[in-house]
Amino acid sequence: MTEIQRPLILVSNDDGINAKGIAALVEVAKQLGRVVVVAPEQGQSGMSHAITSAIPVRLRHVREEENVSWYAVSGTPADCIKIAMYEVLNRKPDLVISGINHGSNSSVAVIYSGTIGAAVEGTLYGIPSIGFSLLDHSANADFTAAKRWFAPIIKKVLAKGLPHFTLLNVNIPNIPSEKIKGYAHCRVTHGKWSEEYEKRTDPQGKSYYWLTGFFQNDEPGATDTDEWALANGYVAVVPVYVDWTNHAFLNQMKQEWRFDEELAKKE
Amino acid sequence: MTEIQRPLILVSNDDGINAKGIAALVEVAKQLGRVVVVAPEQGQSGMSHAITSAIPVRLRHVREEENVSWYAVSGTPADCIKIAMYEVLNRKPDLVISGINHGSNSSVAVIYSGTIGAAVEGTLYGIPSIGFSLLDHSANADFTAAKRWFAPIIKKVLAKGLPHFTLLNVNIPNIPSEKIKGYAHCRVTHGKWSEEYEKRTDPQGKSYYWLTGFFQNDEPGATDTDEWALANGYVAVVPVYVDWTNHAFLNQMKQEWRFDEELAKKE
Repeated sequence: MTEIQRPLILVSNDDGINAKGIAALVEVAKQLGRVVVVAPEQGQSGMSHAITSAIPVRLRHVREEENVSWYAVSGTPADCIKIAMYEVLNRKPDLVISGINHGSNSSVAVIYSGTIGAAVEGTLYGIPSIGFSLLDHSANADFTAAKRWFAPIIKKVLAKGLPHFTLLNVNIPNIPSEKIKGYAHCRVTHGKWSEEYEKRTDPQGKSYYWLTGFFQNDEPGATDTDEWALANGYVAVVPVYVDWTNHAFLNQMKQEWRFDEELAKKE
Repeated sequence: MTEIQRPLILVSNDDGINAKGIAALVEVAKQLGRVVVVAPEQGQSGMSHAITSAIPVRLRHVREEENVSWYAVSGTPADCIKIAMYEVLNRKPDLVISGINHGSNSSVAVIYSGTIGAAVEGTLYGIPSIGFSLLDHSANADFTAAKRWFAPIIKKVLAKGLPHFTLLNVNIPNIPSEKIKGYAHCRVTHGKWSEEYEKRTDPQGKSYYWLTGFFQNDEPGATDTDEWALANGYVAVVPVYVDWTNHAFLNQMKQEWRFDEELAKKE
């Protein structure tokens, strides 16, 4: 295969360029194409789709390996994709993959996740994009099963693409590869975080708040959600839609909600 | 009306507690209920739905005014809503409103916007939530028309609520109130940002990148989008869905996409 025929794969994450998870994802990706990594210098967990505009960002060429170029950016995951498109790549990549995140991005974590932020940015550029996460927060998480189970998803998306404004959010349980039952195509679980802070007092006697809390599944009985799939030993694959319009309610609102009546009433 | 009967309205933004836009929104809100402001100490534009977890956050009681309590948080807009729910409010508010943003949050800006981040967080708590923006970035923007046109929307949502996982993203053109033609119920315009950076060289000779660029409307002919509405003198009201599942593609994927075939092929 010549260089020109190989797919160009842009890799990012939110745990930073030195995370074990991104190295695992690069191992998979370099078997399938030419890889360019553009990842944050520092951990950017929970940065969602944040972009840096109040200060400039720096781009650092880290190293070249066979089939893999590594770059680091002093910004967010979304910044990484933007800088990659603007400055690093000489053509539109065939795929954006982000991760492998150390920790779950299932359910509403999809909204807070910097891993998904990078994949959303790829999607806005019209590039098929996937976010990958393993349900193990630890820095030394074992990505063996993740590599095996994620590779077919990357191959499929390289072959078939994805619909407009749609990315995949893929999570894998933290269990040995042979225990995994298969792939589950799921929807986003409705849920929220509860009791979210720990209040502490600093040495000067002033209080401060650490984010903590636990996830509350609002539909524990549902069997078509990513939470169900993960709890039952499946790789959860969720198609995420970046067009946020609630079309059903838009139609209802058009018929029933007349704001100008209120405006007239007032005057 | 007694205190108990009055709606409890939580107000936040992403331009920070001292912005002119949040003062304008409070002016409207305090006519309609008891107001608690919990807003970022500093500007948080472009912070999307980011949350602060690597460092703690501080909460500062700024001042009390008639019918309005003001608090500031050393974090993001989403942090503000979380801290408000955890520590500031003694009951679930009836409404979360965010803004008025200095500058547009139409089209895909809805994804990057910290103003919308606060409204998304309110939505995840099951509270009807609205993000408001004026198409004028300047610190001294004139919010006169915005106040007049946004009040009926707040009243309607207080009276009727919003569907589960759905918020409103409301933008108003920067034109005099009497020039505004009415309300338009719209969908999110598909688009992206182009030529996004300005590359500069620092005094040490090293390069850095400032975010810049311009918005490119991918469907300039459509007349049911927020971009169209704003360009034609309407207040654009978009119902935003926080359940990101692409259900249509999920169904297709369930039928057509078998990742395990790839897995079997490999082994």
